[in-house]
Amino acid sequence: MQQFDTVILGGGPGGLAAAYGLHAQKQRVAVVEKDLWGGTCPNRGCDPKKILMAAVEAQAHSEALQEHGLNGVPQIDWTALMAKKRAYTSMIPGGTESGLKAAGIAHFHGAAHFNADGTVQVGNTQLNATNVIIATGQTPRLPQIDGQEWLRTSTDFLDLDTLPEDVTFMGAGYVGVELATIANAAGRRVHLVHHSDRPLRAFDADLVHDLLDRLTAAGIDVRLDTDIVKVAPDGDQYQVTTKLGESWTTGLVFASAGRVPVDQGLGLDQVDVATTTHGITVNGHLQTTNPHIFAIGDVVDRPQPKLTPVASYEGQYLVTALTNPTAAPIHYPVIPSVVYGKSQLAQLGVTPTQAKQDPATYRVNDLDITHWYSYQRIEDPHARIKVVIERASGRIVGAAVLSMEAEQVINYLDFVIQQKLGPVAINQSILAYPTLASDLTYFN
Amino acid sequence: MQQFDTVILGGGPGGLAAAYGLHAQKQRVAVVEKDLWGGTCPNRGCDPKKILMAAVEAQAHSEALQEHGLNGVPQIDWTALMAKKRAYTSMIPGGTESGLKAAGIAHFHGAAHFNADGTVQVGNTQLNATNVIIATGQTPRLPQIDGQEWLRTSTDFLDLDTLPEDVTFMGAGYVGVELATIANAAGRRVHLVHHSDRPLRAFDADLVHDLLDRLTAAGIDVRLDTDIVKVAPDGDQYQVTTKLGESWTTGLVFASAGRVPVDQGLGLDQVDVATTTHGITVNGHLQTTNPHIFAIGDVVDRPQPKLTPVASYEGQYLVTALTNPTAAPIHYPVIPSVVYGKSQLAQLGVTPTQAKQDPATYRVNDLDITHWYSYQRIEDPHARIKVVIERASGRIVGAAVLSMEAEQVINYLDFVIQQKLGPVAINQSILAYPTLASDLTYFN
Repeated sequence: MQQFDTVILGGGPGGLAAAYGLHAQKQRVAVVEKDLWGGTCPNRGCDPKKILMAAVEAQAHSEALQEHGLNGVPQIDWTALMAKKRAYTSMIPGGTESGLKAAGIAHFHGAAHFNADGTVQVGNTQLNATNVIIATGQTPRLPQIDGQEWLRTSTDFLDLDTLPEDVTFMGAGYVGVELATIANAAGRRVHLVHHSDRPLRAFDADLVHDLLDRLTAAGIDVRLDTDIVKVAPDGDQYQVTTKLGESWTTGLVFASAGRVPVDQGLGLDQVDVATTTHGITVNGHLQTTNPHIFAIGDVVDRPQPKLTPVASYEGQYLVTALTNPTAAPIHYPVIPSVVYGKSQLAQLGVTPTQAKQDPATYRVNDLDITHWYSYQRIEDPHARIKVVIERASGRIVGAAVLSMEAEQVINYLDFVIQQKLGPVAINQSILAYPTLASDLTYFN
Repeated sequence: MQQFDTVILGGGPGGLAAAYGLHAQKQRVAVVEKDLWGGTCPNRGCDPKKILMAAVEAQAHSEALQEHGLNGVPQIDWTALMAKKRAYTSMIPGGTESGLKAAGIAHFHGAAHFNADGTVQVGNTQLNATNVIIATGQTPRLPQIDGQEWLRTSTDFLDLDTLPEDVTFMGAGYVGVELATIANAAGRRVHLVHHSDRPLRAFDADLVHDLLDRLTAAGIDVRLDTDIVKVAPDGDQYQVTTKLGESWTTGLVFASAGRVPVDQGLGLDQVDVATTTHGITVNGHLQTTNPHIFAIGDVVDRPQPKLTPVASYEGQYLVTALTNPTAAPIHYPVIPSVVYGKSQLAQLGVTPTQAKQDPATYRVNDLDITHWYSYQRIEDPHARIKVVIERASGRIVGAAVLSMEAEQVINYLDFVIQQKLGPVAINQSILAYPTLASDLTYFN
């Protein structure tokens, strides 16, 4: 039996933020990871995905300028791109573990579960702790269909030695849309199937529609309001059948229909930690129904989007909460969400939909900005922004953007909204000109 | 004789900002432009230059990813690129004049000069005004050399029907470096000659050195500490000779050795407006030595860099100053400067050089960031940042950056510095991940 102040289940961005922060506050901390040190994001999530996306973006910028000053579009070399990705990801688990070792933070590799007495068991080792933080994340959901055993996941896609000539994605959430975009940019035939007519439902419906139009224009076979009901081997390929009776042969089928919390096998029922189908229930202090057990990151049932920086933020919050008994409940700043791709779909703050429900408080500027300097310069094929403005203050309080480089625009607006800067403050700044940021004043 | 509250000489970004602002304050305003409505920046300055640069940037992103996932580098088609640029610039003068007309702002096309009695003469028209704002800008400097008449300027470069196979730039200021970068990216042989060993002297010496190394690696013939003393026609080309006796044949020679204020021919001596070789002398209220005459933008002798947003800012300041007699002197926020190119050189706030002169107050973090996520992702061939941190507050107060996309980094830091955000505020923001902005926390 080893004794700790805090034991953290999960060595991803949330768990590590808590571990390093509590260690710095002189707590005795242990981190347990059953899979890869570093967690989903750097090993098989946002980081490697966006490494692949770098090639997609460079290609998109060249494509946009064809007949406008550039000749030739670079082609994606999957083998080389995967080598680049692996050069990055192969360093993550060892590097993460070395970091913990160097910091002197106890860490254990293995599956953990709670014992009846509240201690945590990892293999033959028992860890006793005043508090436990669950940061075990999510994992891809495998739909219950005929031939489920043939489905691959985003984890497989991000580590494919060979990308087949034809691939199918089941589910047009952000993972499905992003991986479909990468496969399409690599010159593959891509099918993207979604069960409803409203993919990416956390994002603005109009802009999602625009994005799907762009995916279709790029050659992706987008199929809405249907679903794959059967996958069967067909030589070295697969036969896919939808509930509408459509059928095609494809090289691989990827389940991209959402993710599920990793809350099974932890023995949560032994320690009275309540869960829903969306994850672990927590209160405003990220405390579960057991007052000495907390949960952060993707495993939590909460309204905020499940994103790496949110998990880190929650980990940092618990550093405060576990070392200061009078800490206020967690307060989330505005949280940007981005679907990466040739056109990026980004969102922040009050949404246009929320704004329209309260027209006395907000107005929405819906702008086609393709002709604005920054987008005209790079020949952005479709640039549109909906800016939500609070009538009383004249301040920007939310935005939804579809454009190349929307990630930059949304990050600038993050500062603007977070710091409650009004038009006056923006006008009193001098920004590099002409840049995406110097266009900001036009958004009012 | 027509009577106005304010007559503005120069219809560029500074003059127009003043004109629209004063008009909105119910002043009777007139604007006089002797050349192209809109001024240098949109017609023959930063805007068209950065339109050309879009192709350079897209090419650079593809180049960087060769053997790392992309095959093929797009080539610049000068004719198509120039067509794209002209599609933009051809709309500027007419659009600017239409805007003035639609707003009901009086405007006159022609050269203006002061009469002895303080009125402004434009052709046969006399404009009488309570105040006059001089916003006539700068124009390329033509060095006094043997064969000066054969020199072209940046204005010519930005409107070339054909870009010769070999071009020479005389002067490695930001105009010379940027245009040389464009010509080099278009596959031309490029010579870049600078009279001293310290080009771009407003920027950090180390980073300038790094940038010049990159230009040389890209194939530009960079020659420092020498100067062109003679240009002579040689068939349909030109023979160039330096003071060191070097000589070569080139297609065109561009004078890029600085710019001079447009303060001649205005009759400034008639109205007691003092000038230096750097432009018109003003006080803290942008008032010249004649209390009813003001000056803004590039024509002013002031320490701030001569940039479009600075001119606009000054124009906006005069709107306040001319409508409120108790206005405080102008206060400049931090001002970012960027040399655009495949690697961008950017600077903001307290410089590393200034910081080193006051080590008790500041420390400088000099970081090779090539291996950081965002730069590794795009295979930035050289990414380096010097961050100036105020010791007492721990806040970032300045930065010098050399990297692809440095413009974005410097704009984020502009918000950080301008709003006096410390590390705590940055950490309490949630930014889109993983992006250049989400790397910001590493800069401390």
